[in-house]
Amino acid sequence: MKLNKIFQIFVPTEQKFFPLFNQNAEYIVKAAVLLNQMLMTNDPTRVEGFHKNIKEYEHLADNVTHQIFEELNTTFITPFDRDDIQKLASTMDDVIDYINGAAQKIKLYKPKRFPKQFVDLSDLIVQATREIQVAINELKNLKDPQKIKKSCIRINEIENLADDVFHFGITDFFENQLDAIELIKEKDILSTLEKATDRAEDVSDVIKTIIVKLA
Amino acid sequence: MKLNKIFQIFVPTEQKFFPLFNQNAEYIVKAAVLLNQMLMTNDPTRVEGFHKNIKEYEHLADNVTHQIFEELNTTFITPFDRDDIQKLASTMDDVIDYINGAAQKIKLYKPKRFPKQFVDLSDLIVQATREIQVAINELKNLKDPQKIKKSCIRINEIENLADDVFHFGITDFFENQLDAIELIKEKDILSTLEKATDRAEDVSDVIKTIIVKLA
Amino acid sequence: MKLNKIFQIFVPTEQKFFPLFNQNAEYIVKAAVLLNQMLMTNDPTRVEGFHKNIKEYEHLADNVTHQIFEELNTTFITPFDRDDIQKLASTMDDVIDYINGAAQKIKLYKPKRFPKQFVDLSDLIVQATREIQVAINELKNLKDPQKIKKSCIRINEIENLADDVFHFGITDFFENQLDAIELIKEKDILSTLEKATDRAEDVSDVIKTIIVKLA
Repeated sequence: MKLNKIFQIFVPTEQKFFPLFNQNAEYIVKAAVLLNQMLMTNDPTRVEGFHKNIKEYEHLADNVTHQIFEELNTTFITPFDRDDIQKLASTMDDVIDYINGAAQKIKLYKPKRFPKQFVDLSDLIVQATREIQVAINELKNLKDPQKIKKSCIRINEIENLADDVFHFGITDFFENQLDAIELIKEKDILSTLEKATDRAEDVSDVIKTIIVKLA
Repeated sequence: MKLNKIFQIFVPTEQKFFPLFNQNAEYIVKAAVLLNQMLMTNDPTRVEGFHKNIKEYEHLADNVTHQIFEELNTTFITPFDRDDIQKLASTMDDVIDYINGAAQKIKLYKPKRFPKQFVDLSDLIVQATREIQVAINELKNLKDPQKIKKSCIRINEIENLADDVFHFGITDFFENQLDAIELIKEKDILSTLEKATDRAEDVSDVIKTIIVKLA
Repeated sequence: MKLNKIFQIFVPTEQKFFPLFNQNAEYIVKAAVLLNQMLMTNDPTRVEGFHKNIKEYEHLADNVTHQIFEELNTTFITPFDRDDIQKLASTMDDVIDYINGAAQKIKLYKPKRFPKQFVDLSDLIVQATREIQVAINELKNLKDPQKIKKSCIRINEIENLADDVFHFGITDFFENQLDAIELIKEKDILSTLEKATDRAEDVSDVIKTIIVKLA
């Protein structure tokens, strides 16, 4: 083991992991806000620019996720269960992947319209990512576990709302979108948006596991 | 550790986990039977009612799954490998999720017909879930590991049959369903039904791992 | 423990696992080459024959994967982390599953044409599987970790190229394929081909983890 590695062990582990998680929480919120703006702006000529910016955050988040995994391989003592750190990092990564995936599909498919449900879901995604950020920030000091729990409950509520928007959307598209090719696009994009909220719930589940163990 | 937690350790672990698994196996069978009835009844006006009942079983099963995970977090000695208990609980949860998912898609998509392959697959799902129930019931006493193995083999056979039904169905739909929008619905529903049998095979794989380790 | 089990412990573990992994790497390359030939031949009457051969390799690989898992259950000392052996075996299994899945969809869907992107992606799959084979062969002696790293980097590059082909393909299909039913087929097949390269990248990620730990 190299000398710098040995010293690294004595660096409080919070100083390694928490800033990385906070950083990624911020990137996720930023990507979600851009996706929401892309859909609200509803201007096909700006889709490519929005996607470019979202993709940049996705890359940045990817690098941070890799850093977390590397830290995990070289750190003996971790602030909580190694498995949970890994799960937290990869579920957070999944959230931004789905946000980027939805933006990318909108860019590639060029749907002729942005149905209301797209906007509604992107709005719920923003809300969910903001709750993730609150919970992740609180994980560091754990002074207020109730605040974390509240965010987790809120994420579950958001996911339930997203489910409803998704279901109404699908029924609406099948009833009213008579152009089969547009229907394929809209169904696929709606489904990707909805999955982003599912992945946010996965993050919340991991966080709940962590605070149960620390209690 | 609280006093009631300490006493809990001395409760034979079988009394904690097995009734929960048996309960969930029963819910899965009931949901599968309802899905099969929904498809055989073939009455669009009754789809919503059937789905409501299936969803109820899915919720009940969800609660039991959460209970299993909570027990796992507070129990030191488990009847078999913690990882296997977790995998068994989550693969069983996946089965009922796909059963509910198929019923929900039928409700939301309102397909104009229920092709024969829907009914055939739902029938295979019922058979697979009944074998899961047999195997889960036997896990408790392990007096007859051959009975468990037989159920697992049968589940694999059912999954192979489901594969065939799925493949013939897809080819049939692409050849004969000229309405692209109906084709999208039918392909997606058929695929969800088939995945339910895949998930049943996952349960069987976990059970096989467990009995190999206990042998 | 039976006597033959005890002796088995002293068999160098390399002699158990590496030949199995090499065998599977070979099956994967062979399946990939057949898929590429199927698409280049572009003769609908030969699709079924090609798929039959690919499926055979998939079955053979499946048996080897099961053997790896069985060895894992009975071997105390493994050449590297048990978890990594398991992940390597299952990610390799996923690659051949997606190769077979793509071939099967082509057989079942009977698309009216094989777009250029199908051939391009199958060519990238062949390249990725050949790099997997190089890396797996090198894992045994680890004399040349740089060679392994080079293959992993190459797999990542291939996956990026596959992403581009996929994205151009999807945009192309949505713009030019006016037959909605053919579009459904082509989109689904293209997506399965692309996922095969994603799974190849998963293999590369596991291999990278392994060599980091052994360094």
